[in-house]
Amino acid sequence: MKLLEERIRQEGVVKDNDVLKVDRFLNHQMDVNLFMEMGKEFKRLFGNEKVSRILTIEASGIGIACVAAQSFGVPVVFAKKNKTKNISGDVYTTQVESFTHGKSYEIMVSREFLKPQDRVLLIDDFLANGAALMGLITLVRQAGATVAGAGICIEKAFQPGGKRIRELGIRVESLARIESMSQEGGIKFIDMP
Amino acid sequence: MKLLEERIRQEGVVKDNDVLKVDRFLNHQMDVNLFMEMGKEFKRLFGNEKVSRILTIEASGIGIACVAAQSFGVPVVFAKKNKTKNISGDVYTTQVESFTHGKSYEIMVSREFLKPQDRVLLIDDFLANGAALMGLITLVRQAGATVAGAGICIEKAFQPGGKRIRELGIRVESLARIESMSQEGGIKFIDMP
Repeated sequence: MKLLEERIRQEGVVKDNDVLKVDRFLNHQMDVNLFMEMGKEFKRLFGNEKVSRILTIEASGIGIACVAAQSFGVPVVFAKKNKTKNISGDVYTTQVESFTHGKSYEIMVSREFLKPQDRVLLIDDFLANGAALMGLITLVRQAGATVAGAGICIEKAFQPGGKRIRELGIRVESLARIESMSQEGGIKFIDMP
Repeated sequence: MKLLEERIRQEGVVKDNDVLKVDRFLNHQMDVNLFMEMGKEFKRLFGNEKVSRILTIEASGIGIACVAAQSFGVPVVFAKKNKTKNISGDVYTTQVESFTHGKSYEIMVSREFLKPQDRVLLIDDFLANGAALMGLITLVRQAGATVAGAGICIEKAFQPGGKRIRELGIRVESLARIESMSQEGGIKFIDMP
């Protein structure tokens, strides 16, 4: 998606350790006009997949998922990272190994909001090692529901997550796929078909 | 806002300890059609306040803030609860005492995304003791920016947060104000003017 690639070029900052900072428009400050365009693009890509629910993970996936859900006309569910008083014990849960934060954490979704008949579109801002996305897939499978696909804003294609998840037979569509990036050489995208 | 009150009556569950569970449509599963209506109502209420930015707090405020921001045509910033690698040291930060979780935590916003000339609309799903909202107000004041108002979905008016924050001279508009609630007696709303 050219609009997103241009925005990454203009406002993304490559840090060391393979970190791409896009907090001016994606995951700290959020440009909802860009989100609307990304939502329409996800709808164009997954519009035939009979999506009944969108599943994302807190925190930075929520905004994109909610705006995209307006194009789909379906509810959003977000997986929670910490058990709070408001969640009953009746949940699907799995462990996610975070490379960004260097520790693992538990995610959960109430059983009430994932049903066997659901066709679930997963949405997240980043795909790198695929740990969070694998966690969401596990929750959907625990529910006996179907993964309709995964819509990702930015895929770091030089990290193994995308390959790993596509090998499971899951359709992954990333709006910007980064082939390589460095502070000296800038950001190189994989051309879209 | 009648639409929200009806939804709370239909799908909200009163738990003990003053907890109102609205995770079917507000803060776990999210009904984006309802969010759009709430966003329009916030726009109706705060449309003359020259809002330049919406500030919320992760996680459950983000979806409502993003959908509301479409009505305002301004960017959203969400205060983060944990310091991650992706955030530089150049942040506004304050401590929030959480009653729901029984512990305190730090919230922060990058200095880049709150400027002295900003007129900031705060948006959150709940107002009870007002701790999170006070935290957001503190961040805005650290930036030398102006609080244009606070748009809340559900105010537990029997708890002190709303009174406390209105006494600071801040305009608080809550789309549903709960006067009292109990498992036996149900939910009683304060009538809107």
